[in-house]
Amino acid sequence: MRQFINTKEKLVTEAIDGTLRTAGGRLARLDGYPHIKVVVRTDWDKSKVALVSGGGSGHEPSHAGFVGKGMLTAAVCGDVFASPSVDAVLAGILAVTGDAGCLLIVKNYTGDRLNFGLAAERARAFGIKVSMVVVDDDVALPDLPQPRGVAGTLFVHKIAGALADQGADLETVTQAAEETIKGVVSIGMSLDTCTVPGSPKEERILPGKAELGLGIHGEAGIEQVDFTNARDAMELVVDRLAPNIQPGPHVALLNNLGGTTPLEMGVLAEELVRSRIGEQIRWMIGPAHLMTSLDMQGFSVSLLPAGKPVESGLLYPVSPWAWPGCLPVSDIAIEPVPDGLAPIQPMPSVNEETRVFIERCCRILIEAEGDLNALDAKSGDGDTGSTLATAARALIDAFDRLPLADLTQLYRAIGLELSQTMGGSSGVLLAIFFTAAGDASASGQDGIGALKAGLDRVQQVGGARPGDRTMIDALLPALEALPGGFGAAAKAARAGADHTASITKAKAGRASYIAESKLAGHNDPGAEAVARLFENLVESAVAG
Amino acid sequence: MRQFINTKEKLVTEAIDGTLRTAGGRLARLDGYPHIKVVVRTDWDKSKVALVSGGGSGHEPSHAGFVGKGMLTAAVCGDVFASPSVDAVLAGILAVTGDAGCLLIVKNYTGDRLNFGLAAERARAFGIKVSMVVVDDDVALPDLPQPRGVAGTLFVHKIAGALADQGADLETVTQAAEETIKGVVSIGMSLDTCTVPGSPKEERILPGKAELGLGIHGEAGIEQVDFTNARDAMELVVDRLAPNIQPGPHVALLNNLGGTTPLEMGVLAEELVRSRIGEQIRWMIGPAHLMTSLDMQGFSVSLLPAGKPVESGLLYPVSPWAWPGCLPVSDIAIEPVPDGLAPIQPMPSVNEETRVFIERCCRILIEAEGDLNALDAKSGDGDTGSTLATAARALIDAFDRLPLADLTQLYRAIGLELSQTMGGSSGVLLAIFFTAAGDASASGQDGIGALKAGLDRVQQVGGARPGDRTMIDALLPALEALPGGFGAAAKAARAGADHTASITKAKAGRASYIAESKLAGHNDPGAEAVARLFENLVESAVAG
Repeated sequence: MRQFINTKEKLVTEAIDGTLRTAGGRLARLDGYPHIKVVVRTDWDKSKVALVSGGGSGHEPSHAGFVGKGMLTAAVCGDVFASPSVDAVLAGILAVTGDAGCLLIVKNYTGDRLNFGLAAERARAFGIKVSMVVVDDDVALPDLPQPRGVAGTLFVHKIAGALADQGADLETVTQAAEETIKGVVSIGMSLDTCTVPGSPKEERILPGKAELGLGIHGEAGIEQVDFTNARDAMELVVDRLAPNIQPGPHVALLNNLGGTTPLEMGVLAEELVRSRIGEQIRWMIGPAHLMTSLDMQGFSVSLLPAGKPVESGLLYPVSPWAWPGCLPVSDIAIEPVPDGLAPIQPMPSVNEETRVFIERCCRILIEAEGDLNALDAKSGDGDTGSTLATAARALIDAFDRLPLADLTQLYRAIGLELSQTMGGSSGVLLAIFFTAAGDASASGQDGIGALKAGLDRVQQVGGARPGDRTMIDALLPALEALPGGFGAAAKAARAGADHTASITKAKAGRASYIAESKLAGHNDPGAEAVARLFENLVESAVAG
Repeated sequence: MRQFINTKEKLVTEAIDGTLRTAGGRLARLDGYPHIKVVVRTDWDKSKVALVSGGGSGHEPSHAGFVGKGMLTAAVCGDVFASPSVDAVLAGILAVTGDAGCLLIVKNYTGDRLNFGLAAERARAFGIKVSMVVVDDDVALPDLPQPRGVAGTLFVHKIAGALADQGADLETVTQAAEETIKGVVSIGMSLDTCTVPGSPKEERILPGKAELGLGIHGEAGIEQVDFTNARDAMELVVDRLAPNIQPGPHVALLNNLGGTTPLEMGVLAEELVRSRIGEQIRWMIGPAHLMTSLDMQGFSVSLLPAGKPVESGLLYPVSPWAWPGCLPVSDIAIEPVPDGLAPIQPMPSVNEETRVFIERCCRILIEAEGDLNALDAKSGDGDTGSTLATAARALIDAFDRLPLADLTQLYRAIGLELSQTMGGSSGVLLAIFFTAAGDASASGQDGIGALKAGLDRVQQVGGARPGDRTMIDALLPALEALPGGFGAAAKAARAGADHTASITKAKAGRASYIAESKLAGHNDPGAEAVARLFENLVESAVAG
């Protein structure tokens, strides 16, 4: 068993109970498990025409999910893909029907017709007004003797439900249901069979094939067709629907048969609207799970001619959440990309001292390339040195366009350069570091304070904290010591970097995925780079 | 490829376009496909705090499905399971942010943190107020260094979205988001891996196993566990959640990871409420598709402590349909089975003439058993004779309790007897025939008229019409001729029955599934039974 169920026998009753518990008190069931599985509204006073539907389970949210104000009054549930008993249907009718009478909405399967039909007779013997309509919307074959009832049934629930809720009498509601049934056509397609609980999966549809014109009980489709892509699939579906509709606007119902992903359903919606009947589709219901066939990876399209009564029925507000609404199909609204995506290029300016200092930093990192790579190789992929050196070389090349005379702009510009030239997470983090430092500088922080603000942001965005074996373990103490001079900063950075060799439980960055034994005894290469930078700045200052 | 897509490269953009077309004009996208995939509200005036979320695609309806009044202002979509670019995020921020500022809601994945983080920096450089929160609700491992962001993110969207819609300032919205993140815990379980478009499916989870503590990108779970049934599965999930929550009421979010059927989700909802933490679950969101992982057959449970601000945020009305609402968990409401399921047993009465007539009919059918079975064997399973004979014998045994003196009651009583003793479709149809005849008799029809009304109802419920090669082909002409006596009726029945031998395109009943060659030349056994009945009634009348 590869399903979240307990036993096949209790599947439906337990699922109904779960539904009732999470329905916010809006639904109840009749006593009589396991034979009588009837879900009813709790806010029902029998003053209007009752709508009773149902059939085998496995089509959720049909039918219990559509019980509620404006749609069904009761859902009579059978076991998976099995018609409910006459007694169960009769119990449903008796439970919800008052003087206004009851409409049974039945899908065209022999078992459902007979059991609902006999239940209706037995109810009539009590003097209860009952009418019954049979939905047969499947157009898989042009001359199918008994077309099945599939997802088009939802149109009937919704339109009849709206009328009943507005107080229409049984004859009016029944007539509207019959009109709807006359107008609706449906067809389904699937790439895989459904998995019936407790039964081995039938591998009937081979890869590269799809079934067209299938029902909702796992039965084989009318034919297997080659499957190439979503566009061709929808074209085959449209080919079957088109001869069965008249000119003029329609409502489309795009139904997920179970296991199709929302991404696929989105693509199918797009293909339906772009198809040769797309111009005729004024309204769309879904894509959504409406009349499923367990986990079947398929979809169905149902069409109903649009018009005032149909639209007012479909737009009438209802309480069941499973109803996704009926929305006008629209063109794709495209708004322009906002200005500002191209980063503001600062005006270059000259400051020889700053240029020399930055170049010195860059050269230090370039010289450390080999050592840092070697260190990184012990716990990672050995490219920390090269990543930093590449960025440093790019920065040297960029001197001519840097605003060297304006610290705020310079921080921002360095951030921008690094985001464009330095790949990977470390590039983004250093870009954030300098960009945030620029912002802090703009708000009046001094140079060191701005860098510390940048480091704060790096911690927030990157998620690393001191002690997590990252560059922060050297950079944070260095910045804190920096007011005391480069010597103090270098000392603090070195202590911080060396301490990382003893941190074997990395909590952030790539090292968090590395075995502890590989980390022990080696400095984090990012922290080491910071220590080298400050140490060499001291040396070169001494040398200079 | 076994997915309804066109190309892997266009999957996300086409799915977004399909979503936009079917959103009733409520959503737009920014220009800049394929790099910039940003869905925005069309009813947005930038007067309030904007909420921007997003990340890789494949989690639908997250995030575009939650763009709308009361939830997100923009969703920035990456490719499947891939973080969107910094430019895309920045475009989203710039498109929707006004003076009130913008909150970025980011799930805790390095790519998302960095790209959203750098975009935030770049937006701030324009003077835009941006704050960012990182959701890390996964509690798969007690000491996970960087807990992932999973379905608990929905709590943040909803609560922050409600505040923003009510006009709260950025600081208040951000603080509420951070409070929510602190409180929420989540864990997932799956029976199968997801199918990444364009990649072969990884068969990592063997039958009988489940993965516990998995993310939403198809990555392996923290551990594989034995899978027995839904109850044990939920217990394992609860075992991980329980140590991470405080006493007191909670809101549970039950998320379908993609391919789990609604039936399974119903069972899981029931198990969650019945679990040892069930008492603490005051509210439930779902079961529903909220944060999926493509077609993964799994689920996740997220918990958040309940309380006034949380509840008012979660209950705040929103426009995105994908939000299933937050409903109070309730006991299962059970209503009594209505009276009337036990059919009304009529008072027995005596009428010797009627008794003799009915017994004669029964004996005729009993005698024809062998012939009718033989006829049925040519096109069916050879049991028509036995089915009718069994019913006839049962009726003879029932004489003592039949209301023989009251035609209306007698018709109904025969219907009741047949529905209890005669199996299969034919039993139900004959029960409908007599029950409906009883109703018609009650409304004043004479005996023959009542039988014709019964036959009308049989046609309506059973779906067969004259010419469909059923019992109707003999019974209808017989009833029409009956006012002229049994001789006329017998003649008409015989002609009708013999005509069925030439009907090879059966449109109803089991014969509609039989090859034409098997039907040709043989009378329909049901129609033959009717003809035999009337013919023998004539003979016995003559003999008597």
